[in-house]
Amino acid sequence: MGKSPAEQHPKKAFGWAASDTSGILSPFHFSRRETGENDVAFKVLYCGICHSDLHMVKNEWGNTIYPIVPGHEIVGEVTEVGSKVKNFKVGDKVGVGCMVGSCRSCDNCSNDLENYCPKMILTYSSKDSDGSITYGGYSDCMVANEHFIVRIPDSIPLQAGAPLLCAGITVYSPLRYFGLDKPGMKIGVVGLGGLGHVAVKFAKAFGAKVTVISTSPNKKQEATERLGADSFLVSRDQEQMQAARGTLDGIIDTVSATHPLLPLLSLVKTHGKLVLVGAPEKPLEIPAFALIGEKQWPVVALEG
Amino acid sequence: MGKSPAEQHPKKAFGWAASDTSGILSPFHFSRRETGENDVAFKVLYCGICHSDLHMVKNEWGNTIYPIVPGHEIVGEVTEVGSKVKNFKVGDKVGVGCMVGSCRSCDNCSNDLENYCPKMILTYSSKDSDGSITYGGYSDCMVANEHFIVRIPDSIPLQAGAPLLCAGITVYSPLRYFGLDKPGMKIGVVGLGGLGHVAVKFAKAFGAKVTVISTSPNKKQEATERLGADSFLVSRDQEQMQAARGTLDGIIDTVSATHPLLPLLSLVKTHGKLVLVGAPEKPLEIPAFALIGEKQWPVVALEG
Repeated sequence: MGKSPAEQHPKKAFGWAASDTSGILSPFHFSRRETGENDVAFKVLYCGICHSDLHMVKNEWGNTIYPIVPGHEIVGEVTEVGSKVKNFKVGDKVGVGCMVGSCRSCDNCSNDLENYCPKMILTYSSKDSDGSITYGGYSDCMVANEHFIVRIPDSIPLQAGAPLLCAGITVYSPLRYFGLDKPGMKIGVVGLGGLGHVAVKFAKAFGAKVTVISTSPNKKQEATERLGADSFLVSRDQEQMQAARGTLDGIIDTVSATHPLLPLLSLVKTHGKLVLVGAPEKPLEIPAFALIGEKQWPVVALEG
Repeated sequence: MGKSPAEQHPKKAFGWAASDTSGILSPFHFSRRETGENDVAFKVLYCGICHSDLHMVKNEWGNTIYPIVPGHEIVGEVTEVGSKVKNFKVGDKVGVGCMVGSCRSCDNCSNDLENYCPKMILTYSSKDSDGSITYGGYSDCMVANEHFIVRIPDSIPLQAGAPLLCAGITVYSPLRYFGLDKPGMKIGVVGLGGLGHVAVKFAKAFGAKVTVISTSPNKKQEATERLGADSFLVSRDQEQMQAARGTLDGIIDTVSATHPLLPLLSLVKTHGKLVLVGAPEKPLEIPAFALIGEKQWPVVALEG
């Protein structure tokens, strides 16, 4: 019989774990490995709550290993570094996102695309290289190879930095990858939740004119006054949608609930891009023929 | 009461028309306009049969105007040119595709993207600029503005050139637009019908290694021996599909029936492209969460 989570490694750790699909987290004593020569250990100060955590806690994606300690938007302060660690020292503010390991030798890893490595090790509920199960950031301490540790600049409040490690990169990356990062572009952001509000801020920082698109008129104030969006479009308002046809260079769609895509496609310019970053559990509704009627040729990018 | 199709214009024309959703075409006497100063008139020698013609004949897309003369892959020989026509003369081999007019002044038209012009006039079942209804190439003669006439080089047999005007451009264009036209690339073609077989030939002409992907093992001989594909993959064969994971730079998916996309996505490399050119009548099956499991970030392009 294997060792219990509390006895598996030498360093004591405490967190909050789910032991079944109930969605309830309970206090959980487990352990972390000693800080290896390439490892950075840090005290967890803040951890974001991502919708993925909720899905995983309830095993809604079918791959949860219980007990599970969620949390993959983790920030804190370095307490120990291994002898070969080059980029961090005790006291540094750091973070860890959704992964803590990869093969480091495949084509993806060689191209700084560790997130596509077939052997990527997720921050929690994943088998680590030593065979033990990984535990996430709803806990008091973390240990990870420095390659997967990022620095949080002093200019960013730690609690605000945490969500950048998943929600942030999920919208930043496609804005850059699909060239939606040019000053003066007109960018739409669908949904104003965890991802959407960061997308608005990034797009504004890139110099775009940002339109928030939402089913909820009551999000207008938050969008325009608090987050600085330039305009607000109620997706259920046919007149508003009609007036905005073909005006956007690109749209970041952050909604994970099943929703119609055609009205969004009609908003982009010819060769405009509609990027889907939400992860619905049902197939998307893409009424393909209707696209012919639109005579648009959009790029729909689906990201995990 | 308006004039009958046979009396509307001065030049007599004969074709095959559907007058209802039965799918039956009957002999049809109608008329074409006089050759205007910017027009080219030609004798129709061949006309491709596209699946869109069948949809339109039966009003399956809801926008058919009866009687309808289908046909938008039309080739023939010039019989008359208008006084201002610069690029064609009597006797030239020419063709017309799916459109015969556009506004010529919008952003799309200014960028050689007349196919995205909101005022584009389709080759049949569309309202022409004079208010009359357009009739397609299942007929003995055509008249169109020279801007929408293409030359068929002598090196191309006319009957082989016809399908290039819709099936051809539908696969050629995305291969070019999405950069899937580089020598040495590995390109997949899903479906070996009207579009697929042309896609194989274009991809081979670009210098790609082409894999045909099909549910039908009995298409292998046609794919590899007749069309010159380098390999053949039976999409229902799990072992073959598994072995081909992550090997393709891009896929042109020409299947219009509803079909699962995830197995196809698994075939492309990281940042590979899956381009859908078929027009299913039902929503596509995109199991979005499964994409997360794949950790791929494909581009799914939907073209009309």
